[in-house]
Amino acid sequence: MSETTMEKIVSLCKRRGFIFPSSEIYGGLASTWDYGPLGAELKRNLKESWWKSVVHQREDMEGLDAAILMHPHTWKASGHLEGFTDALVDCKNCKKRFRADHLPGEGSKKKCPECKSVIDLDETPPRLFNLMLKTYLGPVEDESAVTYMRPETAQGIFVNFVNVLNSRHRKLPFGIAQIGKSFRNEITPGNFTFRTREFEQMEIEYFVKPEDAASWYERWVQERFQWYESLGINKEKLRLRPHGSDELAHYAKACTDIEYLFPFGWSELEGIANRGDFDLKQHAQVSGKDLTYFDQAQNRRYLPYVIEPSGGVDRAALAFLVDAYREEEVNEATRVVLGLNKELAPFKVAVLPLLKKKPEIVEIAKKICSGLQKKFVVKYDDTAAIGKLYRRQDEIGTLYCVTVDVQSLEDNKVTVRDRDTMQQERIEINLLEKYLTDKLV
Amino acid sequence: MSETTMEKIVSLCKRRGFIFPSSEIYGGLASTWDYGPLGAELKRNLKESWWKSVVHQREDMEGLDAAILMHPHTWKASGHLEGFTDALVDCKNCKKRFRADHLPGEGSKKKCPECKSVIDLDETPPRLFNLMLKTYLGPVEDESAVTYMRPETAQGIFVNFVNVLNSRHRKLPFGIAQIGKSFRNEITPGNFTFRTREFEQMEIEYFVKPEDAASWYERWVQERFQWYESLGINKEKLRLRPHGSDELAHYAKACTDIEYLFPFGWSELEGIANRGDFDLKQHAQVSGKDLTYFDQAQNRRYLPYVIEPSGGVDRAALAFLVDAYREEEVNEATRVVLGLNKELAPFKVAVLPLLKKKPEIVEIAKKICSGLQKKFVVKYDDTAAIGKLYRRQDEIGTLYCVTVDVQSLEDNKVTVRDRDTMQQERIEINLLEKYLTDKLV
Repeated sequence: MSETTMEKIVSLCKRRGFIFPSSEIYGGLASTWDYGPLGAELKRNLKESWWKSVVHQREDMEGLDAAILMHPHTWKASGHLEGFTDALVDCKNCKKRFRADHLPGEGSKKKCPECKSVIDLDETPPRLFNLMLKTYLGPVEDESAVTYMRPETAQGIFVNFVNVLNSRHRKLPFGIAQIGKSFRNEITPGNFTFRTREFEQMEIEYFVKPEDAASWYERWVQERFQWYESLGINKEKLRLRPHGSDELAHYAKACTDIEYLFPFGWSELEGIANRGDFDLKQHAQVSGKDLTYFDQAQNRRYLPYVIEPSGGVDRAALAFLVDAYREEEVNEATRVVLGLNKELAPFKVAVLPLLKKKPEIVEIAKKICSGLQKKFVVKYDDTAAIGKLYRRQDEIGTLYCVTVDVQSLEDNKVTVRDRDTMQQERIEINLLEKYLTDKLV
Repeated sequence: MSETTMEKIVSLCKRRGFIFPSSEIYGGLASTWDYGPLGAELKRNLKESWWKSVVHQREDMEGLDAAILMHPHTWKASGHLEGFTDALVDCKNCKKRFRADHLPGEGSKKKCPECKSVIDLDETPPRLFNLMLKTYLGPVEDESAVTYMRPETAQGIFVNFVNVLNSRHRKLPFGIAQIGKSFRNEITPGNFTFRTREFEQMEIEYFVKPEDAASWYERWVQERFQWYESLGINKEKLRLRPHGSDELAHYAKACTDIEYLFPFGWSELEGIANRGDFDLKQHAQVSGKDLTYFDQAQNRRYLPYVIEPSGGVDRAALAFLVDAYREEEVNEATRVVLGLNKELAPFKVAVLPLLKKKPEIVEIAKKICSGLQKKFVVKYDDTAAIGKLYRRQDEIGTLYCVTVDVQSLEDNKVTVRDRDTMQQERIEINLLEKYLTDKLV
């Protein structure tokens, strides 16, 4: 049976150093993944692009980097302690535990997916299990020490709303943006890095006058959609899916998902929600603190409404990887190319000595490499013959290969090969930086 | 009583948006801190400088971004499950728990720091408590589900050694570098962000031939020391402290700390250790996997030795903050300046309209700002009068203030003020980007 696209991508990710199963030498940790040298750069580039576009290049945004550990009352206020649960059912026979809504069978008569015995929901009704990962802070493991790994970065923003407002002398509308890890004890993680228990989020909470919320919501839906487009994703595989009123969370006034057509189907990359004043109201109530905003122009005090564009870094990385993957027939062989956008490609340039045993060639190649490294992410590679090196660089998405050969010693020129067109040009070494700058910046 | 330097810095950090107590509206979470808009940028700049210098601008390094959650066997192999403990003692009277080595008193007769009653160590001997934060993965909270939040990023590197080696076709010597969060259930955290339960590390594991370990150890000690110097820290307050043989960890063959003279004394920023082959040997043994390296040139197979430069991002950020803080008397008032190096300063330039009610001035200022934002982190600020704005920008370390005034409308020039000298220059608007590029890049 031929490999599926997902299998090919998972295999490339491991073989080329994008993504490894976490703790693989110990058999892995279910649905946990480590980003290798290439994956770490891809994620860095994604996060940098996001941060630049939403924080550095806007006048209405502040950055934040809040801790993963938060005061437990946070989760009382946010509703996670009570409501962030899955209904689980135990199989009396094999003692395994399953999500009630994932059991096959009709009515209250279900079938255990593991041992196939009957599970009668009237006898063993589903029980609610919280999806937050719990830990104990301090020396004593008792109830008073229970703390949670945050299940979303958003609450770190809400509890800091007044601190940011005051320290940065802000007026509405303005937003707070944050990138960071979150944790959810998913019962059924899967689809490679798409759904994992540890994941990275990029979230914005954008605070507005209540009467402006609807129009800001529309703006953010458009802006976020355009961000994915601007990084070169195939528009045919990107869509907006507004939530029906029946699927809206109780606190949300409106929500739209940005979805990508993965090999496993249309799936959410990011959600943009109009959360009203739910979060600030809850935190004000539980903390007893005044979280209102005084609007000088209108001479009134109110809780701002919040528009929340909330994206997954790992999901975006996976979407761009899947989207960039292509196979071409070249000279009766298959060429695998990762056609990543120039902003996202882990390495921009590879410098390759055609003959690694010729010291004059190696010397020039290394000098070119270290010169270019001041400006771009550039790698020197002499670990195989040139044809193989080209294929490897194609597979990891490197935009240009610069090859130093015997002729370079005479004409001070190098061959620059374009990843996508495979066309080669001879470029003077002292014009190389300018040539690449024109292409890459 | 006058404020101490640390009190002043903690106060500035909150007032200006560098660092807030975590979950402050709920009374905070002991020794946990959130980085505000300015702190988030400072940390970003620090991490970026580190990553560029150790990953992008070297040929012998790979990056990695491993998960916080790891297979529990990792901690068996690393020794953390058995050995990463503090000896704690319960006070029978007040039921509080303390570190045995922190109790006042002589011999086995100690005094409870809380209720002052006698603690007899013969009666209530100290017990060992593990410092790893524990959690449960999956639906059942039992022993088989126990997982730990990593107490160091290093082990994520060791378990991926072979994956990185193979996917990147590496030969010794080469290193793997990683930045990420770690967690330790410290019984006595403190000194602001210096010792916290959640912290960020920047760690390198550099793999070498055993016979080259001593010389690479010396090189890394020097290189890492120079990195702190290169970012402008006061050399008088930076020192190397080699560990005596009595304080070496059992696996370390040598270790040197890079220490900074904080207001609370000389304290460790980074440790550089020669760990021998301890870690790979342990992981090979516990996993049953072959983690040896085949040296083609020598035609032999061996476990590499490892040099580990391990630094704290939060500690470095605090050191640079403390080091940059200065007070000057200017016109009989105190000017507070954060003299951060140009690479670390959160904002490079502030653009200030002298009269915010004059639309022509605002228009020019905003245009200048958005133009410069393509290249630098630049903020527009009109939230106070010019004198106050200058002082605020000084306090957050902004390198240049660009002021647009009425005269700008006529001569197309702006006033550029230098943070450190306070000198002002009139610069033509269309030469401004070049002027700032010369200063900043």
